[in-house]
Amino acid sequence: MHANRVSFSQLKQFIANAMIKLGLPPDDALKVGHIMAEADLQGSDGHGVIRLPSYAKRIKAGGINLKPSMKLVKEKAGMAVLDGDNAMGHLVMKHAAEIAIEKAKNCGIAWVGSRFSNHAGPASIYARMPMEKNMIGIYFAVGGANHTSPWGGLDMLLSTNPIAIAVPAKNEPPMVLDMATTVTSYGKIKVKAQKGESMPEGWMIDENGAPITDPHKTDGGIMLPIGGYKGYGLQLMVGVLAGTLNAAAMGSSVIDGNADFASKSNTGQAILAIDLDAFGDVDEFKLRVDQLSREMREGKKMPNVKRIWLPGEQSYEKRKSYERDGIELHPNLIAQLDEFAQAHQIPTLMQTPSF
Amino acid sequence: MHANRVSFSQLKQFIANAMIKLGLPPDDALKVGHIMAEADLQGSDGHGVIRLPSYAKRIKAGGINLKPSMKLVKEKAGMAVLDGDNAMGHLVMKHAAEIAIEKAKNCGIAWVGSRFSNHAGPASIYARMPMEKNMIGIYFAVGGANHTSPWGGLDMLLSTNPIAIAVPAKNEPPMVLDMATTVTSYGKIKVKAQKGESMPEGWMIDENGAPITDPHKTDGGIMLPIGGYKGYGLQLMVGVLAGTLNAAAMGSSVIDGNADFASKSNTGQAILAIDLDAFGDVDEFKLRVDQLSREMREGKKMPNVKRIWLPGEQSYEKRKSYERDGIELHPNLIAQLDEFAQAHQIPTLMQTPSF
Repeated sequence: MHANRVSFSQLKQFIANAMIKLGLPPDDALKVGHIMAEADLQGSDGHGVIRLPSYAKRIKAGGINLKPSMKLVKEKAGMAVLDGDNAMGHLVMKHAAEIAIEKAKNCGIAWVGSRFSNHAGPASIYARMPMEKNMIGIYFAVGGANHTSPWGGLDMLLSTNPIAIAVPAKNEPPMVLDMATTVTSYGKIKVKAQKGESMPEGWMIDENGAPITDPHKTDGGIMLPIGGYKGYGLQLMVGVLAGTLNAAAMGSSVIDGNADFASKSNTGQAILAIDLDAFGDVDEFKLRVDQLSREMREGKKMPNVKRIWLPGEQSYEKRKSYERDGIELHPNLIAQLDEFAQAHQIPTLMQTPSF
Repeated sequence: MHANRVSFSQLKQFIANAMIKLGLPPDDALKVGHIMAEADLQGSDGHGVIRLPSYAKRIKAGGINLKPSMKLVKEKAGMAVLDGDNAMGHLVMKHAAEIAIEKAKNCGIAWVGSRFSNHAGPASIYARMPMEKNMIGIYFAVGGANHTSPWGGLDMLLSTNPIAIAVPAKNEPPMVLDMATTVTSYGKIKVKAQKGESMPEGWMIDENGAPITDPHKTDGGIMLPIGGYKGYGLQLMVGVLAGTLNAAAMGSSVIDGNADFASKSNTGQAILAIDLDAFGDVDEFKLRVDQLSREMREGKKMPNVKRIWLPGEQSYEKRKSYERDGIELHPNLIAQLDEFAQAHQIPTLMQTPSF
């Protein structure tokens, strides 16, 4: 394996070791390690191990409950609201997805919302959980800090509020859409900063509407929604579904997770599981998805376009190549994690055994 | 009332008279008239009475079943699939929304998909139906003709596949998002053509990527998705949820509703109803929505911006003013409807009594 590549199990164990050191029970630490390493595995590198230092900062500041008692505060046959008791968001949403899957088996579909959750990593991870059980998964979340304004406004009242939708296929890769409702995501900006690259114009503007391209100078910058007022509308609605509906933070009550590490974020998310078996023959559905994928991919291309991609297909290919060759991490990130390991007295990533 | 304004009841009755003449049972004709007139009432003028001539053309060509037997082909506590038996789409989706509302009262949420439906007018009409019952309504549809291509492709394999989300408020207008996943909708292009206006650049391109601005020269033109590849992903996913999931048309199986008036379209739609009562106190939720609306509206504005709008707020104000002053129709449209009335031996719009 190359010097800047690690195996999934190595990365998972490294994160779990860090989380145990930070005070998480070993079972929970392994769950968080698994989900964070999976983020890197699927190429969602803005939501993987790169977040470890900021999670650690929050845990040390008392901003995370390490011994939470999650409970369902509302429940009907097809829905529930899960109070995460300020646990790591990964644990809250893994639990929420499991409840949604169980309920969907009975009702055909089920919706589970969260309150007092926290940042949980890439949206698609949770949408994929129902997908692995022959369901369509849909995930909504309120982002961890407000980076954008209502359309025409200057006050930071909205986040990048992402949507993920995961659809299983038979022989083709699954269709997995994972998108922020802004042109970019804060995760991607962090990766640009990490790599020392500049941001393209159209990602962010300042109060005068001038583009910001330095990923280190994003203070006060306003991220732009996709499709102008339409993206603003989507942001707001995703926030209502994931936040307001669950009495979780939304709008001005969203704390800035990049500045305030001690306060409860009261993050809200929601997951919808749609059981394919309730709608008809599962294999027939999957074959229809296969056909749709091939139709899109095999159509006539615009000049200079080499390949038409399906949502999630590039991530799927990355996952396959990373499983085979190891997960590639930027040398700057590895150096940062080495420092982290030393400061926390755990084995470095490269010293962590791969199994 | 001005010469180019009509009352809601007048417009509804005019459409109902036309539909009765075309062979719809009177009850169904009134339901269709109500929904189509409501489209104009809320300013969705691309989906209202402007569509009457094309609906008539489809009915006469045998493309609509005037005496359908709709039935639930799949059903569980929280979901159903409704076979519309090729009825007018308005009738199918009104029925679907009613079923979703009833099921959501028991399960907390419910999803009803349709197959063998038809074009049903503005997405928000159906999302608003649960909203009127203290629920959040979400609606997805496969558009009536493919007007766009996968990102990077040239084959017309996708439609404008709209999303609508309707959220009730307490003292503020409800939040109602109704958006095509393309930069524009075919309805808006029809209105531009009707009014003799040109389209802005960014709505549609030709095979070489050059902008098309003449709304009469859209043949072969490719509508652009919002946010580039993200809008493409949304289009595809809305199509999977509204079409593929219900074994309705999607991708290459979508017939061109503007060219083929005789074939069954097998249009698919889906409605999701989320019962607020299951999630907590309904009034408290609505007050949170009120607060969110005010926060957005009352924030600092960009230079030259007069007002920050909430999704659906302009439509809400139009509805109020049209209820008070009558629905304004373009003179070209009134002339076209006069011709239609004469050809079908029904009273003209202005001769139709208002009650």
